[in-house]
Amino acid sequence: MAAIHCIQALGFSSRTHVFFPIGEQTRYYIINKKQRGLLVFASADKNPVKEFYNKSKVDTLLNSVKWDDKGLAVGIAQNIDTGAVLMQGFVNRVALARTVSSKKATFYSRSRSALWTKGETSKNFIHVHDIYLDCDRDSIIYLGKPDGPTCHTGAETCYYTSVSALLENEQEEENKVALTTLYSLETTISQRKDELALPQTGKPSWTKRLLLDHDLLCSKIREEADELCRTLEENEDKARTASEMGDVLYHAMVLMAVKGVKIEEVLEVLRKRFSESGIEEKRSRGQVS
Amino acid sequence: MAAIHCIQALGFSSRTHVFFPIGEQTRYYIINKKQRGLLVFASADKNPVKEFYNKSKVDTLLNSVKWDDKGLAVGIAQNIDTGAVLMQGFVNRVALARTVSSKKATFYSRSRSALWTKGETSKNFIHVHDIYLDCDRDSIIYLGKPDGPTCHTGAETCYYTSVSALLENEQEEENKVALTTLYSLETTISQRKDELALPQTGKPSWTKRLLLDHDLLCSKIREEADELCRTLEENEDKARTASEMGDVLYHAMVLMAVKGVKIEEVLEVLRKRFSESGIEEKRSRGQVS
Repeated sequence: MAAIHCIQALGFSSRTHVFFPIGEQTRYYIINKKQRGLLVFASADKNPVKEFYNKSKVDTLLNSVKWDDKGLAVGIAQNIDTGAVLMQGFVNRVALARTVSSKKATFYSRSRSALWTKGETSKNFIHVHDIYLDCDRDSIIYLGKPDGPTCHTGAETCYYTSVSALLENEQEEENKVALTTLYSLETTISQRKDELALPQTGKPSWTKRLLLDHDLLCSKIREEADELCRTLEENEDKARTASEMGDVLYHAMVLMAVKGVKIEEVLEVLRKRFSESGIEEKRSRGQVS
Repeated sequence: MAAIHCIQALGFSSRTHVFFPIGEQTRYYIINKKQRGLLVFASADKNPVKEFYNKSKVDTLLNSVKWDDKGLAVGIAQNIDTGAVLMQGFVNRVALARTVSSKKATFYSRSRSALWTKGETSKNFIHVHDIYLDCDRDSIIYLGKPDGPTCHTGAETCYYTSVSALLENEQEEENKVALTTLYSLETTISQRKDELALPQTGKPSWTKRLLLDHDLLCSKIREEADELCRTLEENEDKARTASEMGDVLYHAMVLMAVKGVKIEEVLEVLRKRFSESGIEEKRSRGQVS
């Protein structure tokens, strides 16, 4: 039955299904008559589609990578929602093939001379949604979603040592992971929230006032959304739109901090909506009268 | 005069300033009496502070990197606003020292056995805001802002070859750069906008309806902002907040597409506000009555 669900979920119109168990997991082999040579592999575990590419195409891909003299290319794992660079390792032919088929970020450990799938010990796998090659095909991005912190130290990513903090002797800042603008803002707001629990810490700030006064916060969000709309309605310039959108984002992020919701959770919601045929379709199916 | 402005901008109370020109650019050397041994370098070009770290600290940093048997570490350039991985190269001791001092992403070219600063030919430099080392100190992120497209092909980043597109034979998708959720959504909205110019293309969609009907779009943005506020006012659960925030973001991004404003521009606005002592301070200085 699981196999039938897999097939239905895949949307294949295959007529011939050949099921037989292999190894630890039961795997279902599906022969698609219409596309001869295409062997569809599906398994009954959490991610139903494990391998579903034509072997010769995978070989062509593997041959197209410019492996170095040790048979390696650089592999970078990146969080598909936040864009955070989670870790970097090296990838050989088998590791890339394994990642394509298992959808779990897999590397080649130079120190242990062995293949390793990130998460095989910690269980914090990185579920790969797509893989990108760079222009000269010797560098690979695994764009995926981590199950939990990626670094063996427990940090969200392996990049938590800031050179500017080191050079400026800010020891207390040493464990600040590399954050892009949106997440840096989120962290600042979160720090203000933490400071509220320790009244002696930090200076008064607008963020703290908003965190404490929910009526003010909500009135600001409604006001900023209105101002954003007016940049369109009153044909204001682009810089004004960018600035008002900045205000909307900032105030909405303060509300999210109050509620304890991360921007990553919001992006995950958006990604899932779009991959399920889109927010657009959901909306057009009648939510708006 | 430029030097005086630099010094004032730096906020130093240095009493002794020694200025003399070196090389192509005029450089101002400032000897700070209070902190003996700290040599402050400033130049009169676009980015006023070029080098301002104690040499022994930089040496300690350079010694702490785990250079491989060729004296190299992996260097990844990442867009500080969008999180996009722009390119990956290799970095040696001199390249890292040069990046620390020049704030322009600099690599070591293995094929040319030479140092190279990204942008020295194209003028699309990557202005580095901070540098991060990974947990085992053999991988480096240059977190910075690119002047323009990073790839020599003219693409925004070097990672424009999607493996899933290759394997699924979607040739037309081959030049789609690796995009995280927010930018993937932005691209989808932008594609819908492009389709409007070609009425025969694509299906009807909610996004297209919003792109055409600005009254509807603005009423939805106001409505979604209100619904986001109500998740706080009416103590709704976190999932509801994440979902409503997703709605706010999506609809606001449709408005930005109408206006031709990129989310990257909004993030740049936010970053600059925060680096100029914060949106918080700006707001607390009386904007709110």
